[in-house]
Amino acid sequence: MGENATSSAEAAPAVAELDPPNRTLMGPGPSDVHPRVLRAMSTPLVGHLDPSFVELMDEVQDLLRYTFRTDNEWTIPVSGTGSAAMEAAFGNLVEPGDTVLVPSNGYFGDRMASMARRAGGDVVTVDAPWGEPLDPADVESALAAHDPDVFGFVHAETSTGVLQPDVPVLTEAAHDHDAFVVADTVTSLGGVELRVDDWNVDVAYAGPQKCLSCPPGASPLTLSDEAMAKVLDRETDPRSWYLDLSLLEGYWGDERAYHHTAPITNVYALREALRLVAEEGIEARWERHERLASALKAGVEAMGLAMNAPDAYWLPSLNAVCVPEGVDDGAICDAVLEGYDLEIAGGLGDLAGEIFRIGCMGHAARPENVVLTVTALGDALAEAGADVDTDAGVRAVRESLR
Amino acid sequence: MGENATSSAEAAPAVAELDPPNRTLMGPGPSDVHPRVLRAMSTPLVGHLDPSFVELMDEVQDLLRYTFRTDNEWTIPVSGTGSAAMEAAFGNLVEPGDTVLVPSNGYFGDRMASMARRAGGDVVTVDAPWGEPLDPADVESALAAHDPDVFGFVHAETSTGVLQPDVPVLTEAAHDHDAFVVADTVTSLGGVELRVDDWNVDVAYAGPQKCLSCPPGASPLTLSDEAMAKVLDRETDPRSWYLDLSLLEGYWGDERAYHHTAPITNVYALREALRLVAEEGIEARWERHERLASALKAGVEAMGLAMNAPDAYWLPSLNAVCVPEGVDDGAICDAVLEGYDLEIAGGLGDLAGEIFRIGCMGHAARPENVVLTVTALGDALAEAGADVDTDAGVRAVRESLR
Repeated sequence: MGENATSSAEAAPAVAELDPPNRTLMGPGPSDVHPRVLRAMSTPLVGHLDPSFVELMDEVQDLLRYTFRTDNEWTIPVSGTGSAAMEAAFGNLVEPGDTVLVPSNGYFGDRMASMARRAGGDVVTVDAPWGEPLDPADVESALAAHDPDVFGFVHAETSTGVLQPDVPVLTEAAHDHDAFVVADTVTSLGGVELRVDDWNVDVAYAGPQKCLSCPPGASPLTLSDEAMAKVLDRETDPRSWYLDLSLLEGYWGDERAYHHTAPITNVYALREALRLVAEEGIEARWERHERLASALKAGVEAMGLAMNAPDAYWLPSLNAVCVPEGVDDGAICDAVLEGYDLEIAGGLGDLAGEIFRIGCMGHAARPENVVLTVTALGDALAEAGADVDTDAGVRAVRESLR
Repeated sequence: MGENATSSAEAAPAVAELDPPNRTLMGPGPSDVHPRVLRAMSTPLVGHLDPSFVELMDEVQDLLRYTFRTDNEWTIPVSGTGSAAMEAAFGNLVEPGDTVLVPSNGYFGDRMASMARRAGGDVVTVDAPWGEPLDPADVESALAAHDPDVFGFVHAETSTGVLQPDVPVLTEAAHDHDAFVVADTVTSLGGVELRVDDWNVDVAYAGPQKCLSCPPGASPLTLSDEAMAKVLDRETDPRSWYLDLSLLEGYWGDERAYHHTAPITNVYALREALRLVAEEGIEARWERHERLASALKAGVEAMGLAMNAPDAYWLPSLNAVCVPEGVDDGAICDAVLEGYDLEIAGGLGDLAGEIFRIGCMGHAARPENVVLTVTALGDALAEAGADVDTDAGVRAVRESLR
């Protein structure tokens, strides 16, 4: 071996045993992971072309279809975090010169725009303020004005805590204008009613670390046959090799031939997280999220705080709570993290400083966590001089859960 | 909740408890994962912006620098498998109109070409047969003929079991022609001598599931300041948002601001795998790979088989063993999988049917696995009628290890 190394990286770094703090994750994600899913992640690996893994891929695809409420053959976990699934959606569906209509009412509409532009698309927007959903009439006008090839919307906006209502109305309008519909379901899949087939959504993607309570790393994506036909009929290659669905077809389709090394452990974890969804039942799971988030909402309201979204578009999995006048949201998040090992988050973009973002997702959506969150938030706000009644908040949680 | 679902995915799939077979992984990767790394993966998560995680990111970067033998500030795990790190390298460094020189002597040179083309590059090749390394004189001629902006080469070709010798000669030639050098070190990092700084490699990427014995999902990438300057000076955005290093700079750089949700668990695992590298010592680890693979080589040769690569470019982490005349390589791989739960692989591309690919990587590079591999391969070949002496093979392994 050569011995001419001169790098200051010569000495091996002394890094201590992994010992992270024991948090309760009630922020915008990741959410707390179920012990069964953690255990699945410690399973020794088989190869990504092992006959047993090739069988297991079918199971994961079936479980994803169940969770997305779809029969789409093209239903796979993308080998990356939710943004990789998002880019797989836009990067494959959008061809250079396509017009892509995206919303401007949150962080993730902006991300859609950036991805669509990088794919060679011409981006136009349909507008609504941050903290409000799209108005179907505005979508209809934008469709008529721009005649887009692809229309993206965010079903559950993690940055604002807004649920987009009227999805079937939006998809029907888009289809009347021959636009494909891409839904960002990162924070709705497995937590909030979502019916890909019944609502005629062409493409949907999600992250595993929200309402599925699975560590990030393999992310759900589903495409209808029609959307996949557009992908397979492209005149030019998608701009990413890694996310090229026509190549991934060789691995996740019937052939099961090598494309890239799948993140085996993440697929194991996703399988276990989706098994938990199937055991609970998808509708029961939606109902649980609504029940627990209702208790959280009752608690923060009884405490004297206001929700940012009215009931018509309240998003149970991500609760936007208004920051009281004169309170520094960052200091409150730090205080609950330090005092209670509890993660919640502040706002982003137009809502920075305006809202707390409190998740109620998957395995984290449990009574003990809701009580903890209301308690910790109330204590921290009172300590900061805000006029809140923590006792009343906790009482309201208990009543709501009774 | 709506009750108008008609999908045949209505019924929850009944999927059994995760119970994969207990393999020994001596194929081209993934390799067997150390129990400490598996345990790290079952650690409950913190958020990707948690102060504790932000600190841990520094540790992972330091450990990666140590393993790559570099001081490069720009040393990060990419949120995806090795091919994502590969595409991050080419997709950021290559701008539309750049000329990119890639090798044609294996599967991964072809992949470089595809990624470079999708990034807008004009691809030219330097040729060598599959199973042979590049000749520095050919590289020099190709550099002179094409004057490329970027020159990619494969340090350890997983498809052919070839180690590229003379790396400093290649990088010097490339730099004389003002080309940036990108090294595919997927199957060398942590297993075979690799000195990014001393050898003046500008960009290197790897997979974690080879000689680092870490589950795939977060993949090492390092760039010199000069390479990163080219990335940050681009006139057009890289074509992937997910892999855009100028955006990832915001997360992995000093700011530590949100870009995407990092695959926290995979980063935990990589940290533990790299701790094991640091504890062993990088040079001791290279030496162990060479020692164990030498025993494997001695065993297969004593058994009566030939190595495909001569010693001058033998790749200890991936041993290409010639398939005896008249033997079906696929049937042998199936037999050792079925009889011994042992994974080895056949050849790809020009070497399909010609070679077995036998890994000797990371935690899998242990005496017990070498003995098992020689035993299982010998038994399966004898059963298939090949003229092999398994006893002599095992004896040679024992002698080599003594």
